[in-house]
Amino acid sequence: MSGETIARPHSATDIRINANRLWTSLGVMGAIAPGKKGGSNRLALTDDDKVARDLLSKWCEEMGYEVKIDSVGNMFARRAGTDDSLPPVLFGSHLDTQPFAGRYDGVLGVLAGLEVLRTLHDKGIRTRHPVELVNWTNEEGARFSPGLIGSAVFADLQTEENARASRDSSGMTFGAELDRIGYHGGIPARGGHPVRAYFELHIEQGPVLEAEGIPIGIVTHAQGVRWVDVTFTGVEGHAGTMPMTGRRDALIGAARMIDRVGDIAIGHAPHAVATVGDLSIMPGSRNVVPGAVTLAIDMRHPSTAVLDEMMFKLKTSATLIAAELELKLDIREVVAIPPLAFADEAVRAIRRAADALNLDQRDIVSGALHDACNMARIVPTGMIFCPCVDGISHNEAEAIRPEWAAAGADVLLQAVIEVAELAA
Amino acid sequence: MSGETIARPHSATDIRINANRLWTSLGVMGAIAPGKKGGSNRLALTDDDKVARDLLSKWCEEMGYEVKIDSVGNMFARRAGTDDSLPPVLFGSHLDTQPFAGRYDGVLGVLAGLEVLRTLHDKGIRTRHPVELVNWTNEEGARFSPGLIGSAVFADLQTEENARASRDSSGMTFGAELDRIGYHGGIPARGGHPVRAYFELHIEQGPVLEAEGIPIGIVTHAQGVRWVDVTFTGVEGHAGTMPMTGRRDALIGAARMIDRVGDIAIGHAPHAVATVGDLSIMPGSRNVVPGAVTLAIDMRHPSTAVLDEMMFKLKTSATLIAAELELKLDIREVVAIPPLAFADEAVRAIRRAADALNLDQRDIVSGALHDACNMARIVPTGMIFCPCVDGISHNEAEAIRPEWAAAGADVLLQAVIEVAELAA
Repeated sequence: MSGETIARPHSATDIRINANRLWTSLGVMGAIAPGKKGGSNRLALTDDDKVARDLLSKWCEEMGYEVKIDSVGNMFARRAGTDDSLPPVLFGSHLDTQPFAGRYDGVLGVLAGLEVLRTLHDKGIRTRHPVELVNWTNEEGARFSPGLIGSAVFADLQTEENARASRDSSGMTFGAELDRIGYHGGIPARGGHPVRAYFELHIEQGPVLEAEGIPIGIVTHAQGVRWVDVTFTGVEGHAGTMPMTGRRDALIGAARMIDRVGDIAIGHAPHAVATVGDLSIMPGSRNVVPGAVTLAIDMRHPSTAVLDEMMFKLKTSATLIAAELELKLDIREVVAIPPLAFADEAVRAIRRAADALNLDQRDIVSGALHDACNMARIVPTGMIFCPCVDGISHNEAEAIRPEWAAAGADVLLQAVIEVAELAA
Repeated sequence: MSGETIARPHSATDIRINANRLWTSLGVMGAIAPGKKGGSNRLALTDDDKVARDLLSKWCEEMGYEVKIDSVGNMFARRAGTDDSLPPVLFGSHLDTQPFAGRYDGVLGVLAGLEVLRTLHDKGIRTRHPVELVNWTNEEGARFSPGLIGSAVFADLQTEENARASRDSSGMTFGAELDRIGYHGGIPARGGHPVRAYFELHIEQGPVLEAEGIPIGIVTHAQGVRWVDVTFTGVEGHAGTMPMTGRRDALIGAARMIDRVGDIAIGHAPHAVATVGDLSIMPGSRNVVPGAVTLAIDMRHPSTAVLDEMMFKLKTSATLIAAELELKLDIREVVAIPPLAFADEAVRAIRRAADALNLDQRDIVSGALHDACNMARIVPTGMIFCPCVDGISHNEAEAIRPEWAAAGADVLLQAVIEVAELAA
């Protein structure tokens, strides 16, 4: 009996995912709701999202794995463990996209997870713990605010009632749209179910890994995030008849604020970012002087103290602008997510997986929010980053190389097997 | 035989509209699609617009006047003349409103016109020319751009094909919505039908008449208007991961441009106005750095030369901003309406009407575009302004006094009778 044979049941580092199959799946999924320039435009709970979800279900069911849906539309495909009473190792990400965005943000994590299931299935590898693929609902927050709704309800960070009441810009609710596309499942979402650990592979959405030529980023921390709504209210009026001198144009206030928001982040270089991603203009008609404008602001930094300071500067700037232009001001902090450190156990599992596969790796801080940030509040959670071209994401030009996808999926597979434990 | 009796058939200056009935009609119409603060929110070709149109039809038909609909939804209620082969004297305005706007902009002109019909009807006054009330489709341009679509097609200034193809922000076309609410009539709209003259009563939408205590404004000119779309294109990306230094944020360009647009108008005080009424932000999501932003700009001045100069400054400013921020720039002139002088004949008829009624009057320039500006290109056209409180319009706070409405409607009645000629 060779030593290799004895070791085999407890190690599976010679197993690889099927890189071609993964790339093909990404191509098929990416073609659902194509954008205008090669990307995808698949907002949460649209008809297109339903098509993507149905396809994922079909792929899982083809292997005989039932897909269960919870009450906020999170999808779980479970593969039994040899001790099926143990909590599953969960992995996945999200299939919804930003408007006219890339094909990989979120989708890679789900389809790499599918590839983990397929690889274990094809090779007949048994794990003690069940393993479970998840597709979280409405990660992006582009259609229904805030983002990460599915994982937030699962992690008991948000109520299902609030989730269902969230409205898109046309007034449709999350709840009504979930029901309409047939993804309001029977399992209560709130509080989820016991989970051994959670892993998520995601594109970096930043320039670091590609620039350094490193295929694997081990995410040790996530930046803190503040979402703030700043509303200036003036007096609306007819653009042709309201004299310039008497005007209290809310959009002028918004314009000055947009410039200031950028300055606030630059003042805390290099880690701070601050963005005005959208404006809501009332009434929003060319020939009406805007009466009220709300800025949707996103600020991030790895330190809570610096975020507090940025918030203070934001309020001061807005107050000065409002006073100068005689506008009314309202400031609302919509979301405040503290900076986060991922669990040592999960980080170590990823590091060992990359080592075993001889893949270059580095520690990295996530600038983006991910479902993993919610899961990290309740279970040991690890995130793997793979590079993306020029750091571009939330953009149809988002691109990755097939070998980056494969390396990330292989690390995911190894980390999952380690924590789910190869059956003897 | 007294001289008075002999003069009677050719003069009707003792006739008055029913001020209470006019005010009641304005109240009933204003209650269709109420706003949030006492105004109306009745965008063109919505279900609410249909309700308003149906009500107007009912009121006209109650007097026995048939309402004919043309192929862009313009509504005409005709009262026969004693020589019915003569072209009608046309009068009216529009029932559509801006989003969350006032109850009188446009509506006053239609319901004062209805009051003219009712008064002639009740008193059995015959005119040689037919008289005709019109409700123009989509004057505001808030839902379907550009504004004044109905009168533009009637005056052959726009094709019906272009009108039908105009899309609202949700992608619905003018044509489909017109068909849906059942107001695609059988009469060809393009080129309209022969008209003797056109009169329109409208609120001033500016502060002059109220400030001077004058109930009647005789509109002698209308400002020239330029509608310009300025688009800045940068690179969209993830708000959390795209470093501040590498950004090419289109909204920063838009913000600087908004400030400049105001300055351009102030540089041509007191007549110039310039407004950014709306922005279209792509993709328009809080956590995405905006990749492209289009500013919807409105500039007005009574002189073509000054408008050209303002346009030149607009282009120069936009070019500098785009260069500074490394953004791509696209500038499109969407609408260019030359300044206008109203016909002497119609202006004189209004002046004589106000004189005969002993109402204070002044000449005034219209800062706003009206259907009358389109009609003035093809027939003798006159406009009457009545005051509005604080010059506020395109705003739910828009308000007028019942006596202002009545005085304007009386002047409209007298001017119509003069040009339609009392039957002998």
